[in-house]
Formats: sequence, C-alpha cells, structure tokens
Amino acid sequence: MNPSSGPPEPSAFVQRPSRVVIQQVSPEVDAGRFAAKRIEGDRVEVQATIFADGHEVLAAEVLHRRRGAAAWSRAPMGPLGNDRWSGAFETPEIGPYEYTVEAWVDRYATWLDRLEKRHAAGQDLRLEFEVGAAILAQAAAAAPESEADRLRAAAVRLSAAGPAPGVDLARAVAAPACRYQDRGAVATYGRVLALQVERDRAGFGAWYEFFPRSCGKAGAHGTFADASAMLPYVRSMGFDVVYLPPIHPIGRSNRKGPNNSLVAGPDDPGSPWAIGSSEGGHCAVHPALGTLDDFRAFREKAEELGLEVALDIAFQCSPDHPWVTGHPEWFEHLPDGSIRHAENPPKKYEDIVPFDFDCEDWCDLWDALRDVVTFWAHQGVRIFRVDNPHTKPFAFWEWLIASIREEFPDGIFLAEAFTRPAVLHHLAKLGFSQSYNYFAWRNTSAEITSYMNELLTGPGRDYLRPSFWPNTPDILTAYLQSGGRPAFMVRLVLAATLAGSYGIYGPAFELCEDRPREPGSEEYLDSEKYQLRQWDLANPWSLSEFITRVNAIRRTSPAFRNDATFRFHPVENDRLLCYSRGTPDGRETVVVVVNLDPRFKQSGHLDLDLEVVRAAPETLYQAHDLLGGGRYLWQGRRNYVELDPAITPAHIFLLRTERRTEREFEYFL
Amino acid sequence: MNPSSGPPEPSAFVQRPSRVVIQQVSPEVDAGRFAAKRIEGDRVEVQATIFADGHEVLAAEVLHRRRGAAAWSRAPMGPLGNDRWSGAFETPEIGPYEYTVEAWVDRYATWLDRLEKRHAAGQDLRLEFEVGAAILAQAAAAAPESEADRLRAAAVRLSAAGPAPGVDLARAVAAPACRYQDRGAVATYGRVLALQVERDRAGFGAWYEFFPRSCGKAGAHGTFADASAMLPYVRSMGFDVVYLPPIHPIGRSNRKGPNNSLVAGPDDPGSPWAIGSSEGGHCAVHPALGTLDDFRAFREKAEELGLEVALDIAFQCSPDHPWVTGHPEWFEHLPDGSIRHAENPPKKYEDIVPFDFDCEDWCDLWDALRDVVTFWAHQGVRIFRVDNPHTKPFAFWEWLIASIREEFPDGIFLAEAFTRPAVLHHLAKLGFSQSYNYFAWRNTSAEITSYMNELLTGPGRDYLRPSFWPNTPDILTAYLQSGGRPAFMVRLVLAATLAGSYGIYGPAFELCEDRPREPGSEEYLDSEKYQLRQWDLANPWSLSEFITRVNAIRRTSPAFRNDATFRFHPVENDRLLCYSRGTPDGRETVVVVVNLDPRFKQSGHLDLDLEVVRAAPETLYQAHDLLGGGRYLWQGRRNYVELDPAITPAHIFLLRTERRTEREFEYFL
Repeated sequence: MNPSSGPPEPSAFVQRPSRVVIQQVSPEVDAGRFAAKRIEGDRVEVQATIFADGHEVLAAEVLHRRRGAAAWSRAPMGPLGNDRWSGAFETPEIGPYEYTVEAWVDRYATWLDRLEKRHAAGQDLRLEFEVGAAILAQAAAAAPESEADRLRAAAVRLSAAGPAPGVDLARAVAAPACRYQDRGAVATYGRVLALQVERDRAGFGAWYEFFPRSCGKAGAHGTFADASAMLPYVRSMGFDVVYLPPIHPIGRSNRKGPNNSLVAGPDDPGSPWAIGSSEGGHCAVHPALGTLDDFRAFREKAEELGLEVALDIAFQCSPDHPWVTGHPEWFEHLPDGSIRHAENPPKKYEDIVPFDFDCEDWCDLWDALRDVVTFWAHQGVRIFRVDNPHTKPFAFWEWLIASIREEFPDGIFLAEAFTRPAVLHHLAKLGFSQSYNYFAWRNTSAEITSYMNELLTGPGRDYLRPSFWPNTPDILTAYLQSGGRPAFMVRLVLAATLAGSYGIYGPAFELCEDRPREPGSEEYLDSEKYQLRQWDLANPWSLSEFITRVNAIRRTSPAFRNDATFRFHPVENDRLLCYSRGTPDGRETVVVVVNLDPRFKQSGHLDLDLEVVRAAPETLYQAHDLLGGGRYLWQGRRNYVELDPAITPAHIFLLRTERRTEREFEYFL
Repeated sequence: MNPSSGPPEPSAFVQRPSRVVIQQVSPEVDAGRFAAKRIEGDRVEVQATIFADGHEVLAAEVLHRRRGAAAWSRAPMGPLGNDRWSGAFETPEIGPYEYTVEAWVDRYATWLDRLEKRHAAGQDLRLEFEVGAAILAQAAAAAPESEADRLRAAAVRLSAAGPAPGVDLARAVAAPACRYQDRGAVATYGRVLALQVERDRAGFGAWYEFFPRSCGKAGAHGTFADASAMLPYVRSMGFDVVYLPPIHPIGRSNRKGPNNSLVAGPDDPGSPWAIGSSEGGHCAVHPALGTLDDFRAFREKAEELGLEVALDIAFQCSPDHPWVTGHPEWFEHLPDGSIRHAENPPKKYEDIVPFDFDCEDWCDLWDALRDVVTFWAHQGVRIFRVDNPHTKPFAFWEWLIASIREEFPDGIFLAEAFTRPAVLHHLAKLGFSQSYNYFAWRNTSAEITSYMNELLTGPGRDYLRPSFWPNTPDILTAYLQSGGRPAFMVRLVLAATLAGSYGIYGPAFELCEDRPREPGSEEYLDSEKYQLRQWDLANPWSLSEFITRVNAIRRTSPAFRNDATFRFHPVENDRLLCYSRGTPDGRETVVVVVNLDPRFKQSGHLDLDLEVVRAAPETLYQAHDLLGGGRYLWQGRRNYVELDPAITPAHIFLLRTERRTEREFEYFL
C-alpha cells in the first residue's frame, strides 16, 4: 500500500490482508538499498519484529537463496521475546545472496495453546476437540499421503477423546499438523534484502605495504626481482598480504622532487601516483621495476610463500599519460586549451591530472577504467587498494565493483577514503570490502573505546569492515612521532588485536621511522613517495620479532576472528586499556591490556566481567601472557596489572579457566 | 537500482547518474511506509544527509505539497554541518501532505568557492574568469529576460575583469546565477514521504471521562439531560473534551452484575461495552439515556460551553445484538452451532461476542463497522476513543481511519491499546491520532525520566502522540490506592504537565476514589462499569479546584504546547522530579517540580541548566509558582526546594529572568 494513495476499499484487496506484521528486519542497510556483508561460512542470523493483533500464535521463516536461484530455501524463526524473532542460514559460498521474511498465524498452534490453558483451568473441552479435529482434517488434505493418514486418524481420535488423552494427542501431532495446515494470508516483509558474501581475507588479514623501488642494492632503483627477496622477510613476520604502491610508468612533466618539492632532479624517481608516461599507462609496468612477466613472477613467488599481492588502483594520470593525448575528452580543459591539473584550491597537484567524470564521453571512460582492473585481475591480482575513491562518483564505484565481481567473485577492494563519516560509510555500502578509517587518530582510552563501540554497534557493523593502519606513506601521527619505539609497539598491538584486518607501511614502521617533514606535520621526512630509501632490516632496534609474535598470536587464536564477543573492561587507571574477545562457543578468551602511555610505567586493577572470564569468583584461573610468556594466577574481577613501556607496553592474555582440584592429582585414587 | 539485480552497464543509465547522495531523511516512518504526524500550523523541519564525491558545493530543496496537488512547492535547505542539511515548510491546513528532497551540484557556487580560495592565495585568476563567464552565459540562457540581461552583462564584464573587482562581481551575481544554472543530474531521494496534519486537539487537550448513567437524581439511571447538567462543572475545571463510555443499548444475556459477578439482578444495568439488544446496536442510543435527539442536544450543549464530545468505539457485541441473528456469518460458531463468546483462555467474557474478522464475509463486516463511525460523525462527533484496537486486524484500522478522514478530515482517534510496545506503536503508525500508554505504571523518577526520553527521542516521536491517564474505569493503580489525596494530586500534575494530551476518569478521580476490588487488584471496587454510582461533587475533599488551577496554567502558558525544549534537570533527592519546557523563542520557561512521595516532605537542591533558565550565573531571577502563588528569588544552577505533600506536592514555576537594575528605578534619572 502506497502511503500517498487513498485507502483501498476492502474489496480492492485480492484477499483478506494478513493479520501479521513484519518490521525492522536486520541486517538491513538503508531499507534494503545496499547489501549487508558477511564472510564465507558465516551463519547469518536474521532478526525481525513480528506480531499480530489479538493473541494468535505465530510462525515465521527466513527465506534465503543465492541471487538468481529459482527457489527459496527456508529456515524457521523462533521468538526471542518482546515480539522479536530470529532465524539463521548458512553461507557456504562467496557471492551474492538474497533473503526476506514470511510469517503467518499458526492456526493449529493457536488452538493447541488455548486448549492447554482451558485444560489447565478444568474447562469443558468437548467442542474444542471438534474444532481441533477440523483443523487436523484440513492439514491432512494438504499433507503427503504418509503424513495424511496419521493426521486423519488423529482427527478421528480427537473427536472421540476425553480431556487428558485428547490434550496429549493434540500435542503429539502438533509438528506435522502445523507443517501442512493452510497458512491463510501469509505476511511478507515486502523487501528482498541483499547479502554479499566474501572470502575470509575480506574480513581477516595482516597487510604489509612496501615500495619495491626501495629494494635495490646499494641505492639503485629496485626491481621486482629485488622486491621478491623481501618476500620471505615479510612472510616470516606473519603477514598475509603484500600491498604495492602503483607499479606503473611515472610521468616526467612537473615531476615532484624529494619532500614534495616542485622541481625534480634528473634522477628523482617521482611519485608512483603520477601514473603514465610515454612508456605506458595504467596497464603498463614501470620499466625500472621490470616487465609484466617480472611482475607475474613476483606474484607467483609471493603466492608460493602464502602471501597475496594487493595492487593500488589510483584513477588519475600524470600529464604524460597516453590517454591525455589519446583521449583528451576525458579531461577538463581550460579556456586556453590547457589541461586542468588536480587541485583542492588553493592546493595544487601539478604532477597529476584528474579524469573529468562529468565529461560527455563518461561511458567510455568508465569502461576503460573498469578494463584496467580487469587487466590486473587477469594477471592474477584479486586484492585492490583503491586510492581516494571519495573523489570519484559513487555510482562509478558501485558499478565497477559489481561489474568486476561478475567475472572475479573473489575480488577484494579496500577503500582509502580518509574523509567525512557519511562519505566513508557510503563507499563501504557501495561494495568496498574494507575501509581505511580514523584509527590512526584514536589514541586515548576514551577515543578508542567510543570508536570501537561505534564500529561494532553502529549501523556500519553490517557493511563497513574497518582496516586499522597505524601508519601509511601519507600518515605519521603525532603519537608515533613523540613516543619512540614503545609507541610503535602500542599502535601495532592495538591495530592487530582490535580489528580483523590491519596493516603497516614498512619497513618504516618496524624500524620506527618517526621524523616528520617539519614540526607539526604528519607527513614523513624524506618520504618514499618522492625518493628511494634504503632500509636496514637487520637493525637490532627493529620491531620485526615483536610483530612476528603478535601476528603469530593473531593467527593461532580463533578469538581474533570474532567480533561478536568483543568488549572493553574498566581499569581504574585510564592509561591502561583492557578488552577481551573470545570464540562464540566460549572455549577461548583473550584479554588484551595495553599501556597507552609510551613513556611511563602504568599500573592498576582491571575490573573483569566474570561472565567473560567464565570463572567462579572464588576460584583461581590462569592468565597466560602470549606476548611476554608470563603466567599469572588471577582470582575474581579485580586483578592487578603493571606495564613498563621500556620492557613491553602490552599483555595479550589467554585465559585458562579449567578448574584444577585434588581429583586431578596423579595419586589421588 | 535494485540491489538484487546485477550492475547496469554505463550506457544503461538514461543519463549520467547524479554525483549527489541523499540519505536518512527525517521525519521518515518505516522507510516511508507510514505517515509522520504534525499539527495544523506546524513548521515541519525536514533533515537529510546530503553529500557528493569530491569538494563540490551542493544545493538542496525540500519538495512539498498537499497530497493530490499537481505541482510541488520548494523550500531551500541549508547545511547544519557534518553533511546534515535542513529545510522547512508550513502546514496551514489539516489533511495529508507529501514531501521529498532533491539535491544537486551547484556549479556556479562551486566555481565561486574555488575562486575565493584562489584569490586569497594570490593565484592567477584570468582563465578562471572565463570559466565563470561561461557558467553565467549558460545560466542566462535559462533565465527570464529580466535576469538574463543582467547575467549576460556580468559574463562579459567577468571575462574582462581584473582579480579584485572580478571576485566582487562574481559574488554579486551568485544568487541569480545559481537559480537559473543547469542543475545537471539532480539527485532525488527516491521516496515520497507522507505527512498527516491534524487539528490542534489531536496534540493538545484535557479530557474528562464520565458515565452519563451515574448522573441521575437520587440513584435513578441518568439521562443525557442529567448528564448535560454535569457539563458546566466539567468545563469550569478547564477540560476540553468530555468522553462518554458506550451509549448504546446493553445486552441482557449473561449480563454482568456488580463487581463483574456472573449473575446480574433484574435492575443491574450491565456493562456499557456489552453492546446491543433488541433495542438496537452500535447506531442506537440506550433508551434509558434518551433518544438520538437527546444525545444531539447534549452534544450541542457541550459545544456551547466549549467542550467537544468524544464517543467510545467498541467493536464487539452482546449476544443480543441485532447483528448476531441478522449477520451470523460475522461471528464464529462452535461445532454445536452455538456462538463463541469473547475469551482469552482461560478467561471468559460471557456477556460479549467478538466479530470474526477472519470470516468469509469480511468485506461487508468492515463496511458495516465503518458505517458505524460514519453514522456518529454525521451526528457531529469527531473524536473517537477506540476500545482495544489491538484485538482487531491492523489493516482494518488503517483502512477505516483513512476512509473516515476522506469525508471527515477533522476526525481524531485515540487508541486504547495497553499492550506490547510493538503493537502499541504499530497502531499509532496506522493513523491513530493519540495513544493510551504506560504512563499509569511509571511512578519513580527513573521510570518517568526514561519513559519520557523514549517518547520524545525514540522513533515514536514522529508518529506516536501519548495521552496520559492517571486512572481509567479499568485502572486504579497501586500508587493511587496507597498514596491518598496527595497521590492523586501528584499524578494529575504529572499527566497535565508532561504530555500535551491527558485525561482523567471522573468524578472518581477528583473525589480520590481509591478502593480496589480486592487487595492486589488494580480494578475499582463497585466499578461504574457494572453499576450506577452516586458522586458527591460538593465534597470538600474534591480536587476540582486543584484541577481547575492546573488546567488554567496549562491553557495559559504556550510552553505546554511544545515538546521540543522539554528536558529533565537533576535533583539531589530522587523523590523530587524536576523538568522544564519552554516556548521555541525562549520567551517563556516553565519549571515543574513534583514530590513523588505522597507521604513525606522531601527537599533538595535542583541543578538547573542555565541555558534553559536564561539567566547569568551572578544575577537573581524569579521563580513564580503558578500553582501555589509563591514567588522565590533564585540564583544560578543550584536552588533549594521543599515540598510537603500535606500542603502541595508540586510547584509549577514560571521563570521571570528579566534583569532589573537601578536604571529601572523610577527616580534613577
């Protein structure tokens, strides 16, 4: 019924409208406009508010299917209380699913419910058994022959039964009767909702970003072969994804020099994001890195080691990109015929020209850009980190991602949109698998707590998967600049244990590179964006061992793959942050305590929720620090923690709450 | 775009899709399925989250119209920050309205914004002026001749201008240029939302319920003429609506005796809700009350006094209702041919038979019931209190209310659905103007505070108008039973000052009738539902004067018509509840303080929000108790209050914050 049209006459209904109402189905994103997201193998719980007038007993089902399947599968829903219902279905494969909800008055169950109450009150049931028998007879007519006989026989016996055996009989045939009864006017939710199921890596993984060109020997421009030599190192630290900044030819015109200076020397390599030169555009490989074959060899080496390669999708050109002359209609031109450079007035980006997504020929432009992604997918790449998607039209991304997934359903897209909340969220709704976000700027207990609660309980929980990055080539936060090595450890533990997906830009991170371009800036001094850097991976100060340990813990414990049980615990000292996460079955619980102060020792009592701990108040349990190796015996809610950043700024405790008694002692019996 | 279909090819778009996104429009009820509600003369503020990719300057409008009007009116929207926008329109008449939102990239404003930034940075602007001139020339082509000339001239001057005068000129033509420019791809919200505008009484009014049959002289059955004699008394207390329980013939079969006993004596009048006898059904008047003409005379007398009459709509029958034999198909029959009585097993209501809304002939049944309401509307009744709507199909109410409003747009419907939250809310969405609710059972500071916050800030704020009743013929709460006269005063002040609509069931209320049928029951002893009662209106204990004062305060101060500024203020003693409400312009603020403890004096310091008080911390201001007459000089946030229930359990302060200084003193100059 359209609220904007007048009321229909009763006879205008095709049949009597259903008495059941279905509302507030979850998950649901923007009234069904966008798909909710889940991971392969997830059990999807669907909830809805379902009610009818009067006191009827209701029944409800979740209808679900792979998109495009002809038939719906059905899963029963049960009441949670206060008219909220729940049902669930499995998602064994990646790809798009659909679901909705149906509900109806369960006539037999309603009759049985009233019969039980009348029976308990000692009322005369004779006529009621006749009513029940009629419902059974109707159900028999709709049932397969095997059940029909049973239902018909029960109907006959019900008519003849006395109170007590009659109620027992009515109960005994309840399930088959309900199954075949006339459902009358079934209520449908009215919207079919979409669900995008992605592979595990979309929700869980540790990323390592590095510049292949800095891997050369003795200061030479690195090649893919040099970069391949980095891979065992990256893998040994326990990362899952290596992400490379753009690997394409770099423009010469207005090339930026070191520290983003306007003039580049003849040997300055330029920014990899100034894509395109006479050597090719978005489908070419920078000759100094090697050939397309070299790239493929790099990718294969990575895969042998268990690492997946992610490429950067930056849809912008250097002024020397072949498209600038080949497709001038895709760029904005000024009245003097010159091309408009990228800018955010008064800032200018002279080495970049943006596409004019508003141009007349936008259809061909969109196709060409989609073909870029398709090209790299054909080279075996399935993970794309998308540069600044918030400066390109939203409709473009929604179309591009869906379009790529038609051919490559395992495609993963990470949105780099450090921008306003509405825009960041919208890109996630459009189909991006993961989102960079505000983690880098959330440093205090209050900031981290409120941000995590927003991510885990706000509407974004169904479509926005955060990826936590303590640094990127663009971001060296004030916290990292001022806190020394312990600050890097703190931010690594937080990123790795708060979010399913996290990443670092290395080797700058593990080597604790903390020099800003100038005081007050959050950019790196001598940024690799504009120059080659040589990194001493063997530096004894490196955090590589620490990172290795944290990644190993993450990988080993299934608690890190589950956000449903995540919660914070109060600590009397707010420089200490404490949170726990566990497996849904409660078998494993991890408690993380981080000293957010990178300079001073901090201590205090945790106030642990014993329901999370799963230990009785009077028993001892063990907190085993997987990071430092220590084992502590704790009791009850309040337990003391002391963390010195000079030693380690964090504990990652695995709780062992099996109660040991004398009965376990070898000689007890 | 349907999320369940695959991605369209770019060329499948009729035109380039808009770069602007419109989301989260408010008010919006269930994704537009139901109408939001407002009162005649309200200014409706529409908000939306509106954003685009990139850094374009946007423009947005609210489109609004009376439902059925051919053309939209448009109201400009402006940004509130964080991508939230707001616009407003007026609702001068009652009836259905529609609204939606459009937004687009404002090309000229975007260009001007960048121009200002470039100018501030001292950049070369020559080419930019050419770009601006082209936009102006385009706008001129779309503008009426009067504006077109001006725009064209400005375009020519812009091309030729130097930096400073050019920027001034660009600013000067901004408004007309923006108005006529090509809006390109306009984003539409995608849903047209409905708004139901009702008359003032739907949102604000004091109701008085009484039984006309108890108005007879010396214990005789009262008539409409007797009831008319009550009207000046009711009006003198300041009520707006008199609501009568059903006035129809009452069945004889299974008639209930006093205190709901199963056997009635020959002179027992029966429950007015057991509607119908050989003397007629829902369109007839009980002969003992008089004739239809007598009812009309009663209604006219009420209107002369400024009182509106509300009738009870109870869609159920006594077994003697003419329809039971005339339309047996509208009722459920048992296998032995007998009719099924109303019940909620194991409870039975033998004097009532319910309609079978699931019957084959439901279309005719619905029509007949609608005709009942139409009949009474033709007798001049426009307010209907609907008995137990939650036991009849939802679709029925949605259709009935909309259908009645087609002929009687000023119809007001009050839903009596003391039931689960989802059902209570749903009835409000379907079109009921007002809703009985859980007020009677919210007694402590914590309960009242959280319930009011739920009503004022939850989703119901756009569709559920609460009506607060401290008692009804069915409800005598434990609080009223145990608190004596002060308890009635407390509950009256709360009902009258918390909600725009409130009501009492009198004279039981003002005479503080507090005897329950039995200990632990919340029903009245000797309830008027089953017997005549004689009330001594002149009893000196009567609260009639107190009620008169409270209603006068409510009527006089516009603060009670506005919920937007309602808020609670902390009090150090939680037996004292403090809240304030004011006019939107801030001219008038009322602070209510209630001692919720009906037995003991309570005192404590209020902690008033000075933004609400509108007084500087160091100045005195006056709190004038409109109820008790006292005037207090207060200062700052913390002010002491002491309330003795034996004297008065509440203050209703009008704050007077005009600062007096020596300059106002007569002889100062």
